[in-house]
Amino acid sequence: MEKAALLLIEFQNDFLKEEGAMKGTGIWKRAREHKVVENTVKVAEAARKANIPIIHLPISFREGYPEISKPFGLIKGVIDAGAFKKGTAGAEIIDELKPKEGDFVVDKRRLCAFCDTELESLLRNLGVENLIIAGFITNWCVEQTAREAYDRGFKPFLLTDCMEALSDEEQKFAVEKIFPAIGEVRTSEEIIKEM
Amino acid sequence: MEKAALLLIEFQNDFLKEEGAMKGTGIWKRAREHKVVENTVKVAEAARKANIPIIHLPISFREGYPEISKPFGLIKGVIDAGAFKKGTAGAEIIDELKPKEGDFVVDKRRLCAFCDTELESLLRNLGVENLIIAGFITNWCVEQTAREAYDRGFKPFLLTDCMEALSDEEQKFAVEKIFPAIGEVRTSEEIIKEM
Amino acid sequence: MEKAALLLIEFQNDFLKEEGAMKGTGIWKRAREHKVVENTVKVAEAARKANIPIIHLPISFREGYPEISKPFGLIKGVIDAGAFKKGTAGAEIIDELKPKEGDFVVDKRRLCAFCDTELESLLRNLGVENLIIAGFITNWCVEQTAREAYDRGFKPFLLTDCMEALSDEEQKFAVEKIFPAIGEVRTSEEIIKEM
Amino acid sequence: MEKAALLLIEFQNDFLKEEGAMKGTGIWKRAREHKVVENTVKVAEAARKANIPIIHLPISFREGYPEISKPFGLIKGVIDAGAFKKGTAGAEIIDELKPKEGDFVVDKRRLCAFCDTELESLLRNLGVENLIIAGFITNWCVEQTAREAYDRGFKPFLLTDCMEALSDEEQKFAVEKIFPAIGEVRTSEEIIKEM
Repeated sequence: MEKAALLLIEFQNDFLKEEGAMKGTGIWKRAREHKVVENTVKVAEAARKANIPIIHLPISFREGYPEISKPFGLIKGVIDAGAFKKGTAGAEIIDELKPKEGDFVVDKRRLCAFCDTELESLLRNLGVENLIIAGFITNWCVEQTAREAYDRGFKPFLLTDCMEALSDEEQKFAVEKIFPAIGEVRTSEEIIKEM
Repeated sequence: MEKAALLLIEFQNDFLKEEGAMKGTGIWKRAREHKVVENTVKVAEAARKANIPIIHLPISFREGYPEISKPFGLIKGVIDAGAFKKGTAGAEIIDELKPKEGDFVVDKRRLCAFCDTELESLLRNLGVENLIIAGFITNWCVEQTAREAYDRGFKPFLLTDCMEALSDEEQKFAVEKIFPAIGEVRTSEEIIKEM
Repeated sequence: MEKAALLLIEFQNDFLKEEGAMKGTGIWKRAREHKVVENTVKVAEAARKANIPIIHLPISFREGYPEISKPFGLIKGVIDAGAFKKGTAGAEIIDELKPKEGDFVVDKRRLCAFCDTELESLLRNLGVENLIIAGFITNWCVEQTAREAYDRGFKPFLLTDCMEALSDEEQKFAVEKIFPAIGEVRTSEEIIKEM
Repeated sequence: MEKAALLLIEFQNDFLKEEGAMKGTGIWKRAREHKVVENTVKVAEAARKANIPIIHLPISFREGYPEISKPFGLIKGVIDAGAFKKGTAGAEIIDELKPKEGDFVVDKRRLCAFCDTELESLLRNLGVENLIIAGFITNWCVEQTAREAYDRGFKPFLLTDCMEALSDEEQKFAVEKIFPAIGEVRTSEEIIKEM
């Protein structure tokens, strides 16, 4: 696949460790059952072989979450859990997917990875048009980034076995009702063949 | 409700008339069944009485859709249907909700009403923090605008009987699974009481 | 010149007519002395022949200037003069450069033409990388648009005899000190040969 | 001064050390002559006492400058000099103005500090309206940030003895012709009294 980049959204300890601050979401458990990390590691290796740039998109906040003046909803949940504090182990990217030389890391603070970041600018400079997307949570940060990518003229490829939602229903809804209208749906095996 | 604005997204003939270019979506029919226009007219009247600014957000494209270089997905559907062409009757806002003196009109071309528009800037200058949102399609332009509003620090209030999706399932999913996590859910009656 | 567009910034009656609302700036007089309109008309004709898209960037505000909550500085001058009111003759583009079929019009409300507009998105969809820039005022809206274009990865070509500042000193400073560091400087004759 | 923040733009070793990568600009020498660092240190101390948040805005690039696909002009000068490489001593903020607890650091990669960063979002969440601005280079990154701040509805306060240009002429032009039209001009002594 030409003009592509692999976006890895929030593969961080707070989501993926049993003792992570976001353990209450159960993402760690569901991801383990569906081998999300193993699948994504394979995709990342294939991407590196194919010279497809990898962009890591961890979420993090400063001490005290000063970036959020009046928290409510989803982000209030993050704050209440004390999750994703910049500089803590919980905010670190998991060992299996640690950024390697040549990878890019772009810190995000919002659900959408384009909001307030250099992501679009970086993609333009790398000549990227196709976004292969994996990460968490399927119908939140992943979907929102894919929606915004669509609006900005990129083509998203959503890897169904490299992402996880809070429930089967939510995963299924995103994969069947949303993703086909703004991009293409792939398994990790399929995308590796296309790389 | 203080510091509020009412956003009316895509109340246009191509969506809401039986002969509109988007008739294939069935939005016109479902909206009629659920009295979406009648409900929204009442909300708009209450907003005007309460001095809450109304911002109309019609979508439109220039002749030949030059804003979209490589159409696919949802927007390809719009182009194939020849819908929302600036200057045509189909792109006009429906008579029942025609902008009145003091209202604002902000043209949009993307799913998200914030993308490439002056919407955020206008809201900041009007001192707005709370966004009362109605329009089409519930889980596309409406949801995407609400998600981005959340990311940008606004508080969305989603009016469940002033919007419409392609199916009951999609409407229900947005209302039950998405909106409560990024804002508050209201009926038209409830929001009118709060105005 | 490939992948180019011609940007015409604020060629409006309020700037260019002796009786325009911005007559106090003297732009109309200086522009007449330097044949700015004649030169730009020639560039626009050459652009059309070369299939280079023309993007008109008039500035305008709604009645009462609600887009500006606390006016000061330059824009306060615009408001005090009652200039660039959407829908008035003063806000119209001058007859000599009226948009023709195939041209694009993008309304701006800020000094920078990229701020709160679809300009970048439109340029990306048109495949444009090189921006040929003319208009008013040389060291304000023109320079600011060129600076931001540089930051966003476009290459500006500034047409020295198709723009005007408030004084020779300001025109000279922009042309000699600023433009060469963020783009290339051309006369109308030179750019026509390159088209 | 209420609702204020102090922006410190590019107080980095590559600019301010005699052996810095940008030594060819002579900024280090001119800044020393005009006591720019000493003056800014005093302003920063006064800001901390007045509980005015300090936002450090260093510029930096990844190895190989992948953020810039086709360098020309100013940024080409930076790349040719090998300056502002993330992780090097040259890209570090100078010791005298090292960020302290409670300060914010926002990395920038463009001339304008708002471009592709979380700066606006952070300022909105901190309730900031007035931007006290110091740094380098007066008529490049400083001016461009002030211009964009003006467009986005903030009020810039430019500290004339806490910034430096490549020449007296350029410093004078920015201070006399540009800054008064988009903000207010202050010395470090004056702003300290107002804090």
